[in-house]
Amino acid sequence: MDTLEKQSFLGSSWFSIIKNMDHLPQIAKLLRYYCLVSTSAAGSGHLTSSLSAVELMTALYFAGFLKYDLENPDFLNNDRVIFSKGHASPLFYALYAVAGKLTEKDLKTLRQIDSPLEGHPGVRFPYTEVTTGSLGQGLSVGVGLALNAKYLDKLPYKTYVLLGDSEMAEGQVWEAMQLASYYKLDNLIGIIDVNRLGQRGETMLGHDVSDYAYKARAFGWETIVIDGHNLTEITKAYRKAEQIKNSPVMIIAKTIKGKGISFLADQDNWHGKALREDQLQEALLELGDVDVSVRGEITQPEDLRAKVVKEKNVDLNNFLIKSDKKKLATRKAYGNAITKLGAQNQKIIVLDAEMNNSTFANIFAAAFPKRYFEMFIAEQNMVSAAVGLARMGKIPFVSTFGSFLTRAFDQIRMAQYSKANIKFVGSHVGVSIGQDGPSQMGLEDIAMFRSIRESIVLYPSDAISTEKLVQQMAIHQGISYLRTTRMDTPIIYKQDEGFEIGGSKTIYKSEKDMVTVIAAGITLHESMKAYRQLRKNKINIRVIDLYSVKPLDIKTLKQAAEETKALVTVEDHYQFGGIGEAVKAALVNQSTPIYSLFVGQQPRSGQPDELLASEKIDAAAIVEKVRSLL
Amino acid sequence: MDTLEKQSFLGSSWFSIIKNMDHLPQIAKLLRYYCLVSTSAAGSGHLTSSLSAVELMTALYFAGFLKYDLENPDFLNNDRVIFSKGHASPLFYALYAVAGKLTEKDLKTLRQIDSPLEGHPGVRFPYTEVTTGSLGQGLSVGVGLALNAKYLDKLPYKTYVLLGDSEMAEGQVWEAMQLASYYKLDNLIGIIDVNRLGQRGETMLGHDVSDYAYKARAFGWETIVIDGHNLTEITKAYRKAEQIKNSPVMIIAKTIKGKGISFLADQDNWHGKALREDQLQEALLELGDVDVSVRGEITQPEDLRAKVVKEKNVDLNNFLIKSDKKKLATRKAYGNAITKLGAQNQKIIVLDAEMNNSTFANIFAAAFPKRYFEMFIAEQNMVSAAVGLARMGKIPFVSTFGSFLTRAFDQIRMAQYSKANIKFVGSHVGVSIGQDGPSQMGLEDIAMFRSIRESIVLYPSDAISTEKLVQQMAIHQGISYLRTTRMDTPIIYKQDEGFEIGGSKTIYKSEKDMVTVIAAGITLHESMKAYRQLRKNKINIRVIDLYSVKPLDIKTLKQAAEETKALVTVEDHYQFGGIGEAVKAALVNQSTPIYSLFVGQQPRSGQPDELLASEKIDAAAIVEKVRSLL
Repeated sequence: MDTLEKQSFLGSSWFSIIKNMDHLPQIAKLLRYYCLVSTSAAGSGHLTSSLSAVELMTALYFAGFLKYDLENPDFLNNDRVIFSKGHASPLFYALYAVAGKLTEKDLKTLRQIDSPLEGHPGVRFPYTEVTTGSLGQGLSVGVGLALNAKYLDKLPYKTYVLLGDSEMAEGQVWEAMQLASYYKLDNLIGIIDVNRLGQRGETMLGHDVSDYAYKARAFGWETIVIDGHNLTEITKAYRKAEQIKNSPVMIIAKTIKGKGISFLADQDNWHGKALREDQLQEALLELGDVDVSVRGEITQPEDLRAKVVKEKNVDLNNFLIKSDKKKLATRKAYGNAITKLGAQNQKIIVLDAEMNNSTFANIFAAAFPKRYFEMFIAEQNMVSAAVGLARMGKIPFVSTFGSFLTRAFDQIRMAQYSKANIKFVGSHVGVSIGQDGPSQMGLEDIAMFRSIRESIVLYPSDAISTEKLVQQMAIHQGISYLRTTRMDTPIIYKQDEGFEIGGSKTIYKSEKDMVTVIAAGITLHESMKAYRQLRKNKINIRVIDLYSVKPLDIKTLKQAAEETKALVTVEDHYQFGGIGEAVKAALVNQSTPIYSLFVGQQPRSGQPDELLASEKIDAAAIVEKVRSLL
Repeated sequence: MDTLEKQSFLGSSWFSIIKNMDHLPQIAKLLRYYCLVSTSAAGSGHLTSSLSAVELMTALYFAGFLKYDLENPDFLNNDRVIFSKGHASPLFYALYAVAGKLTEKDLKTLRQIDSPLEGHPGVRFPYTEVTTGSLGQGLSVGVGLALNAKYLDKLPYKTYVLLGDSEMAEGQVWEAMQLASYYKLDNLIGIIDVNRLGQRGETMLGHDVSDYAYKARAFGWETIVIDGHNLTEITKAYRKAEQIKNSPVMIIAKTIKGKGISFLADQDNWHGKALREDQLQEALLELGDVDVSVRGEITQPEDLRAKVVKEKNVDLNNFLIKSDKKKLATRKAYGNAITKLGAQNQKIIVLDAEMNNSTFANIFAAAFPKRYFEMFIAEQNMVSAAVGLARMGKIPFVSTFGSFLTRAFDQIRMAQYSKANIKFVGSHVGVSIGQDGPSQMGLEDIAMFRSIRESIVLYPSDAISTEKLVQQMAIHQGISYLRTTRMDTPIIYKQDEGFEIGGSKTIYKSEKDMVTVIAAGITLHESMKAYRQLRKNKINIRVIDLYSVKPLDIKTLKQAAEETKALVTVEDHYQFGGIGEAVKAALVNQSTPIYSLFVGQQPRSGQPDELLASEKIDAAAIVEKVRSLL
């Protein structure tokens, strides 16, 4: 008996586990029954992937490890469980039936349109922490939850993440592994359900649990390898995992997909399939007598208060935009703005992917080092970790180059289904970054963020509007995106100007306006230059700062369409899904013609002004376009 | 002296290395000189990241390891070099100056708009295999190049990938590591330039080269840890790497960022910065005498022919769409089509991310197992590997769920800059997948693929059009996307119907058409149902199958706008960046009103017909919309 085991036997909680252990096999049997009947009722669902994890979850939930107040899913002290293998949702729901919160009848609504029991766990079910179903994201969410517990709220809750073996092929898992170890997240416990079989056949590593363990140890995790159907081994593993300090723990469990039903066990071609009625009866016969009255008890958590992070005083005067300041990059204005907000609201957290001296998230990091997390060059893990932080009520701002946020599109897409309150900030957008070339230029980022159903997309042109819009983002609930520019741009607004989501600013307007130019960010300044050039020739144009790309200020755009002969949009972004399309789609029933200038050729390295010129989105191109319309 | 070293000393090639070694220090010095003067001439660029890898690349290029015909960059037998740390481009270009293909004057055009020497290597420079600059992708490209050499062309060329230590945080690198080991790619040699410093500060592992080695070994690679500035150690490492069989090899080199210039070496805050003139002079003084006349020789490769993969005979009759067949899922039609094409063209290769029994890539896999690569659940690596295969003239079809292709947006974005010829196929799109729920539904995929500048987006509604469009995709050069549907859909076209990129089909048309309904994929069938319902009430609608979402058949759409009172688009996709916006933007100057039906609420699990109804994109919703317009 090793030291850990001895301690366990001496601890009182170990005795309570022993006591509870009697019920566990019965509970496991009932869980299998629930998985069988619920998927057959639904006519689909991932039965076999649920069966492999039955004992793993039985012990976690009902042997005293999980601490959770079922009456209060938002209680800060609750332990967290993430089914990263979200397709094992039949098991997930079954656990809450055993816990007394769902009936068998409820379970049989699985996958029905009015049921909260969706095909993959969604947040309409109150015990789902975050929506899963795109594999490889759950451990990163767990990193966010665990960072919050260890470094922000300083609460003892633990985060358990159930992983499938197939999803270990996703690089994001290893991003999470490395970062969890870097931040010594000893409150994070992963459980790999090594059932050997993916959707289509065997995984790369098959049943080689020692290989998973080798990899996990190389990434700085403590590992415990067990038989995932042996309740004694499993409970010992959780007990040991609870006691490991300074590193996260991975329990690597050898399991059988379809365990418990002989014609399913370890067989191909059963992934994501439910049993027909005759097959179900055969399976139930094999399962034998099930005590449907057995219930498991989930331990109550302690009632501790979240700590308030103590910070040094920060002189906010350092972050004011001085009234004599003529130019400032919007990315720098973002850094200042977030720092000022951070002083007002402790919930604001900043994450960045090794770019903070480019995005200027480093300003916040210097002021509030305890609320800044360096996430290194791993954008996918960064975004999913932000989902975890948002789940705990934090307000994460997540920054890197706009181009590199594309790396996390799947994670952003999934974040919307968790109703996550995350603020994305992409710097270095468009060809105006200049010499670094197209690989670094955000040119599809507007399209990407617009495509998210309820997103907000903001694109300020100067320091004042940036600051005001960052404030608006912090208040807004949901997914929003701020697009910032690399180069210094003139400050064009006064300190007291107001900016709203869904608004716009008409910079130049007269009764003689011939054409309206609609721009945002860097191209607003080009439009203003064009205005001045055209004015010299007595040609008036209206210039609109469309800083809110989504939602659009349709009223102002329609008015411009009524009052001027033509509209011209200008953007430092590719055509499809960009500002021009957004404006055209919004104004489709207007008769005023709308023309669009955008990045139409593949950009190169070059000086910003050369690139704006070669792409025909600079002042000269705007002047030329306007002249062609007169 | 171990066995490998002894063999090396006995082999004749080792003597030639010894001979070449004399020049190497001089070459290294010249490379440093070139890096210094080119970045200072540009006024920007990643000088210090170049300096750390000078010796590593000196030995690779000029000590007899790299085999490359400089007169013929497309020669199939050339070894391949990928600068995954693309920001070290000053060094990359300098190597070709030492090899005699560029002058110092050429190097000083670095980052200028008319120069092929871009800030990150682009394919306008003839020796760039693929465009890099988004970190963490190069090793995956190398996997594609190495898969081609080992399994397809069966040529002995080797692929060398220079990695930065910062980018080892990207999960995609570990996806590549795992897959390379799975496929035993002993022709793939990675070199990690462990210079300790990222852009913003120290990496997670700093100078702990043994930690990198531990991780790499855990992922099944042979490792060689060296001092990355010691030419003898480096040449021995390459020699050893050449001789290792059955596993890829990672050379882990401890280096100094900014090596060779004391005020840069191992210092923070020099990332991505060039020296001012005074700093340059100080650096050159320290560098001392440089022999600008020294040249290095790159060894010629052998002249071997690519093998033709031998395959068993496949009975193509199995893949015909039988004329009595009434229904077939477009995803299944894709599987059949690609198999028929595969029989005609050996260059067609299929990759899938553990979904081949859902995407039906498994039909091809069964027929042509040697040209199918299972890429497991690692979409990023899959896409970048396809870039590597495309570089070697293969025609990769890359499939998974449409939703999960979002995971690889950054890789798809980068693929365009390599002019990669890749065909993407996303199955299980839209709410019509039903019970699996929103995490599995492709609802932003059209927006994503449309945003790529020169992409093609195709969305067939039946088996015949799918087959014809897959043929078109195979012929088209560049990035294209095919969107397939999960459920069986009626076959509506005849076998001899023609389909073109940029085309459409008008399904129903009469002189009495009141409204035009524009749809694609699943919603075309709903539109046809709506047509039949409306016909019963003597209301005629025109129905257009907009199978080419990008480019659009604007002529047909305009004609419909002229000939009917209103247009209604219907799509199983979110609003922004989808078909409705595309049509509206294309027809903005028409006066005919355009209305759009799309997925407007967050979807749930449910039956396909329930979901189509609740999102108001089914026949009933179309009928209702049309009636409201009369």
